[in-house]
Amino acid sequence: MKLYQSNNSPNSRRVGIYLAEKGISMTVVPVDLGAGEQFSEAYAAINPRRVVPALVLDDGSAIGEVPAIIRYLEETHPDRPLLGSTPKEKAVISMWERRMEQEGFAAVMETVRNGAPGLKGRAIAGPHQYDQIPELVERGRRRIADFYGDLEARLAEVPFVAGDQFSVADITAVVAIDFAKNALSLEIPGENAESRRWYGSVTSRPSMGQ
Amino acid sequence: MKLYQSNNSPNSRRVGIYLAEKGISMTVVPVDLGAGEQFSEAYAAINPRRVVPALVLDDGSAIGEVPAIIRYLEETHPDRPLLGSTPKEKAVISMWERRMEQEGFAAVMETVRNGAPGLKGRAIAGPHQYDQIPELVERGRRRIADFYGDLEARLAEVPFVAGDQFSVADITAVVAIDFAKNALSLEIPGENAESRRWYGSVTSRPSMGQ
Repeated sequence: MKLYQSNNSPNSRRVGIYLAEKGISMTVVPVDLGAGEQFSEAYAAINPRRVVPALVLDDGSAIGEVPAIIRYLEETHPDRPLLGSTPKEKAVISMWERRMEQEGFAAVMETVRNGAPGLKGRAIAGPHQYDQIPELVERGRRRIADFYGDLEARLAEVPFVAGDQFSVADITAVVAIDFAKNALSLEIPGENAESRRWYGSVTSRPSMGQ
Repeated sequence: MKLYQSNNSPNSRRVGIYLAEKGISMTVVPVDLGAGEQFSEAYAAINPRRVVPALVLDDGSAIGEVPAIIRYLEETHPDRPLLGSTPKEKAVISMWERRMEQEGFAAVMETVRNGAPGLKGRAIAGPHQYDQIPELVERGRRRIADFYGDLEARLAEVPFVAGDQFSVADITAVVAIDFAKNALSLEIPGENAESRRWYGSVTSRPSMGQ
């Protein structure tokens, strides 16, 4: 198994933290996003969407999309489950991970991609070119504020995003929050005490250095 | 188990087709979207995102988000698998289902929500209000055209979206295509012969009447 990834890619970081939590090591192949290596024919043959990360299995099959990569790894490495153990846990964690992705991660990504001067024509990741829409930057900042508000309400009820256990939902949320901080200087509001407690707790895990 | 859903909701249709394929019957509770019933306090207690569908388990737990609902049903009803049987199949189907959702279903949804007069202030489903952005309608039509082009290339290689077997990836693609046709009058281009063959084949399945 080989993981194609970039240290500058928040989606790659989601997989990196997952691997560290599970104690899985594998060959990592860096893809130079700055040099546009994801658009090379060699990489397009691995992932036609031309995004990182991608997991290439020993039989040559390539798996793209972070939830699909993590699904494969969890099926083949069931110890220390991060997607839940029972059908109900699996569904609840899947639901919350998706909410963190759609309301947090995707909102940050949209805001960055529609505003960064270096991403003109690249407003949506993938093989097609889409122009930036400045209104999406403004809307994105409101979406991120709404995400922080909803996260605070959730963490007032439970210790981790999906409930009582640390899971991939926490990983996706942390990566979204760190991405917003690094790329947009948007941090968890100071008054969001529950979120700050949770963030301090989960980011102290050794995996989070990824 | 009870499924809260609406016959006017494409996301509800994804679950409806899945249930029909699996031969699972359950109590269905209609949610009147036209009357705004999804914003009632009673429904918000079931799904804080205020969208349909939602699956309520016998212990009262509520599962929202279509992939999470289907994950639960597949775990508890493994016969006639629609999410794959081996770790590799599960990952490949998850990858393709997600692509159909992000590049097809979400593109159609964004185009509809940013243009429909009845959805002013509702450009993103969920508990928060976001204004429509007319440029997203124009961009959405290009995204849908790109989706049709990519789908045609894929179906020139394999009989079903995720490969050799009918799966949830086909369900999501069909629902997106029918939604584009009904809400935007955008059909599979006439020259896309592979897609038309596939569409004719999969929509002849009895489940597709859902």
